[in-house]
Amino acid sequence: MFEITFQLENGDTVKTFAAPGQNLLSAARKAMVEIDAPCAGNGSCGKCRVRILEGEVIYQKNHHLSEEEESMGWRLACQCKVSSDITVWVPGTASAFKLGMKAADLSSEKEISIFRKVKSRLSEAGILFENGFSLYSITLSPPSLDDTLPDNERLVRALRAQTGETIHLTLTALTKLPDALRKEDFSVLLVVERCGGVMTVYDVFSKSEKVSVCGLAVDIGTTSVSGLLVDLLSKEILAKVTVGNSQIQYGADVINRIIESSRPGGKERLQSAIIDSTINPLIAAMRRLANIPEDGIYRMCIAGNTTMNHLFLGIPANPIRMEPYIPAFFETEPVLAGSLHLPIHPEAKLLIAPNVGSYVGGDITAGILSSTIWNKDEFSLFIDLGTNGELVFGNRDLLMTCACSAGPAFEGGDISCGMRATDGAIEAFHMDDDGSLHYTVIGDQKPLGLCGSGIIDVISELFSHHIINAKGNIIGEGDRITRDEHGIGSFVLAFAEETESGFPIALSEIDIQNFIHAKAAIYSAIRTLLNSLGFDLSMICDVYVAGGIGSGINMENAIHIGMFPDIERDRFHYIGNTSLAGAYTILVSDQANEKVSQIARNMTYLELSTDPSYMDEFIGASFLPHTDTSLFPSIS
Amino acid sequence: MFEITFQLENGDTVKTFAAPGQNLLSAARKAMVEIDAPCAGNGSCGKCRVRILEGEVIYQKNHHLSEEEESMGWRLACQCKVSSDITVWVPGTASAFKLGMKAADLSSEKEISIFRKVKSRLSEAGILFENGFSLYSITLSPPSLDDTLPDNERLVRALRAQTGETIHLTLTALTKLPDALRKEDFSVLLVVERCGGVMTVYDVFSKSEKVSVCGLAVDIGTTSVSGLLVDLLSKEILAKVTVGNSQIQYGADVINRIIESSRPGGKERLQSAIIDSTINPLIAAMRRLANIPEDGIYRMCIAGNTTMNHLFLGIPANPIRMEPYIPAFFETEPVLAGSLHLPIHPEAKLLIAPNVGSYVGGDITAGILSSTIWNKDEFSLFIDLGTNGELVFGNRDLLMTCACSAGPAFEGGDISCGMRATDGAIEAFHMDDDGSLHYTVIGDQKPLGLCGSGIIDVISELFSHHIINAKGNIIGEGDRITRDEHGIGSFVLAFAEETESGFPIALSEIDIQNFIHAKAAIYSAIRTLLNSLGFDLSMICDVYVAGGIGSGINMENAIHIGMFPDIERDRFHYIGNTSLAGAYTILVSDQANEKVSQIARNMTYLELSTDPSYMDEFIGASFLPHTDTSLFPSIS
Repeated sequence: MFEITFQLENGDTVKTFAAPGQNLLSAARKAMVEIDAPCAGNGSCGKCRVRILEGEVIYQKNHHLSEEEESMGWRLACQCKVSSDITVWVPGTASAFKLGMKAADLSSEKEISIFRKVKSRLSEAGILFENGFSLYSITLSPPSLDDTLPDNERLVRALRAQTGETIHLTLTALTKLPDALRKEDFSVLLVVERCGGVMTVYDVFSKSEKVSVCGLAVDIGTTSVSGLLVDLLSKEILAKVTVGNSQIQYGADVINRIIESSRPGGKERLQSAIIDSTINPLIAAMRRLANIPEDGIYRMCIAGNTTMNHLFLGIPANPIRMEPYIPAFFETEPVLAGSLHLPIHPEAKLLIAPNVGSYVGGDITAGILSSTIWNKDEFSLFIDLGTNGELVFGNRDLLMTCACSAGPAFEGGDISCGMRATDGAIEAFHMDDDGSLHYTVIGDQKPLGLCGSGIIDVISELFSHHIINAKGNIIGEGDRITRDEHGIGSFVLAFAEETESGFPIALSEIDIQNFIHAKAAIYSAIRTLLNSLGFDLSMICDVYVAGGIGSGINMENAIHIGMFPDIERDRFHYIGNTSLAGAYTILVSDQANEKVSQIARNMTYLELSTDPSYMDEFIGASFLPHTDTSLFPSIS
Repeated sequence: MFEITFQLENGDTVKTFAAPGQNLLSAARKAMVEIDAPCAGNGSCGKCRVRILEGEVIYQKNHHLSEEEESMGWRLACQCKVSSDITVWVPGTASAFKLGMKAADLSSEKEISIFRKVKSRLSEAGILFENGFSLYSITLSPPSLDDTLPDNERLVRALRAQTGETIHLTLTALTKLPDALRKEDFSVLLVVERCGGVMTVYDVFSKSEKVSVCGLAVDIGTTSVSGLLVDLLSKEILAKVTVGNSQIQYGADVINRIIESSRPGGKERLQSAIIDSTINPLIAAMRRLANIPEDGIYRMCIAGNTTMNHLFLGIPANPIRMEPYIPAFFETEPVLAGSLHLPIHPEAKLLIAPNVGSYVGGDITAGILSSTIWNKDEFSLFIDLGTNGELVFGNRDLLMTCACSAGPAFEGGDISCGMRATDGAIEAFHMDDDGSLHYTVIGDQKPLGLCGSGIIDVISELFSHHIINAKGNIIGEGDRITRDEHGIGSFVLAFAEETESGFPIALSEIDIQNFIHAKAAIYSAIRTLLNSLGFDLSMICDVYVAGGIGSGINMENAIHIGMFPDIERDRFHYIGNTSLAGAYTILVSDQANEKVSQIARNMTYLELSTDPSYMDEFIGASFLPHTDTSLFPSIS
């Protein structure tokens, strides 16, 4: 065994042991040293850069590092095998792709407006924002030697007499009942849910206690997970927190995670990563922010893609990725929080936004619910740009959906200088005719990398200025253009001295190629979806763009590179994280919960991977903007 | 802090630290050294004898130890305060009262006949021994690109088509479904429960797997806990194991345990003692004996007294012991095994035999069910002699019940040389006219102590031979009669050299007094119960004696000391542990489960402690056999 010493940029030192030949990335994971590897360690993403300060490793050379960097000791951890005692420098950027926990400022209009907007859209569509939860106050006649009814019957009979409803008393409520009754002369406050003539009593408090009746909405994204803590009675948002999905250590995309989950113990590892390491800390953080007790959360709504839903519930997901691509479920029967050991009221019901196909899940049905395109006469196109791309096209009569494997490029994965739309990300970019560059960085700091909207701008600008050609190859020359020993060109957006990390930020031909594949996947999916209905692009009245690509997305540039169809610009609307907005809606509105099931049942799922025309469309779209330029008349 | 070294008789040494003045019994408990204290450490039971080998303690003198024993270093642990480093000898007898885990020999007729008898009694009473569980075999059409129903809908639709029933798929079944379906071409074996047009699918296996469908019946006694592992399909008993109730460390009777449970963290301690330290090891032992997996147990039936049921479910029990004596529940809504973290199928339902009053619980309703006195025209008296005494009197038209605080004397508690009816217990005793003694010891060994049936014999014989008078005072003289410095007499049954422990076995006047109180509690309760109906003893047609007092009980002697009414001897029937037999019946027979609820609802509970005539009856019965000898005409 060799000793490995990790020196972290934050000053920490972590020591561990590794067998000869062990992969350095896996040794780091075992030692809980956070090093991102969205490509799951196959050397394609270039994110796991570390510097060997002492000792030797067996290294597989990789195009992500220049000879100069290599000579300074920089290595990709996933390409190293341990062959001696070593000391390894782990820069902060090695976990920059991963999103730390971040609480939203709820006083900011930007954070709250999306939920206000979705509420007003759904109200216009006739959905009431009401649920069955309420606080119910009752005073019982105290027992005596002549009236010895047990506590539960005493309560149930009184409730039945007052309401005429069937009363269901949870075990938690029964457990609290004797003490609560005897605190203030048999006067108690109940947390109840009333629905269709049945009253469920979740909790019992003595009359003068302060009681919160809260719910949780959680969007389980492949990359990041967002939660809202909501007052179920006032529908007010009490906290909003976002955190990286800890499953990312098992791969950036759903396929790598499904593969990992199918290994021995893998289902448990993936479930623990999302519940124990992601959602439970998220819940704890939100409860702390809003000062809410664990038991005070009585309902939870989950919106996630089909794979996330399976891994969350601990259900084998492998059939999702194998032809004929069959999930275990679209909808489940009610699941109780206690059966997943979630730190909320154990009898809280989980509402899981329904899946409609192996790659179109609850995040999309929740998103469609919140978009209200199901309530319009004209046809809309809904595009969710997350770690995958999902599309829905339709109106009040028909909803057609498909998913395309765009990969994680829109969230900065698969791009050597890519990152999420967070502090340090270049989110917008412009090049003057004289070649001078202008960019906007999130968080008012030096740049660290490029997020999805930034990449669209860069590629569009480089293409406009003939620095890259329609295939994405670099054809220009100049100071900012470099080539490695294999002749692969890169365009330097920021030199080492201009960046936060001290590494240059450069987009390589490989990055551009990856992004062209991603945008081609989206565009060709749009075409295939419309073709399957016998429609053309002119049928699209409005385009709603959702997802983590960032609000800075420049629609003109996205059309210019052939990612979105060439229709009038004012028909494009960026509507943010509709999955979380939909989950919020389902959580607080019983009618919305019914509606999302109805939407899911009415959606038709098109499996692109088995559609013969899709590959032709994809190849045609793998150019800037397209091989068929007549599709982009406004691009000269 | 002082160092305490416990030297156990089995050769183990346990070291711990204690603060000056700390109670030695509590120090032993913290160090997990088992020392019984059925009196909860108030010095009244004399069971916690230990010997101080080195060092000093502050000791509160106690009548249970002679001056000679004290001079040898013997102390009651509960009466010692630590005042130096000490070495303490803990004899095996210090945990003799406690019952270790013991598996029954199922090939023995004696072990099995009670269940065969209860089945035949109930069948005669028209109760079918059938439940809704079965194995259901089904083959689904495999999915294809043109038939992409998710797994759960595929199964549910096929089941609905075949049965016309409403299908409920548990989360566990959904979790296992994808892999099971794909193992043998979508042919699977389901564990289902069918009831009233609803089919619940608990589990899924591939077609050729060997599947067990088991259930658990558990009698939670205050002193000992017995379990049966049963095949729900064949109703065959696969294992039977008995173990001491770990709650005994918090007191021998329900009152002391309720008091302990009302202290901070007490509810959790008492629940953990019964679940984690008692029932879970019991389940594990039975599963090992029968080779059944954890998930293979699909239903559980619990029969326990009202306090045991509350502590098991973690529900505050304090109101049970405070006037007006109100339990939290008689019956609960279905409780799932998962919500108590029991190591069986998480969606297994717990059937809890219903309580009928604060001191008449599910053990009695289960017992009455199994006795079938609810199906007879003539009146029967049912007596359960456990840690408490409970009575039921009635027939098919009426059932009246009460409990009396007989204390733990029938199980050997409250008696200095008392013990459970297990190896080493004198279970029967006879004295010749020449004064020579004859006794039977369980387990063919030297005697260790006296169990309930043995105490009845000894008191009856000493009374017959005028060694004690009607008040229980020793009036005879002789070698076997000793008196301590306070003048308290004892009758020596076995001298030190004749016993297993090397201590003499002697019944003191205090022991006799305690037992007379216990038998008086039973007899006066019988009279009060009958009086409340305007009946006299002649209405009793049959007497059924149940409980842990032991099958060796001599009814003649029990009448002779005035414990049971003086009616014809052949009307007395010892019917063993009817609580466990009843739990078995409820577990395997859905009709029995309905019947026990009906029995409970029809039972009238008489609260003796508030009945004005009870105290008079009790005082009259606190003699041998009674102050009113006309009640015992056959005793000359």
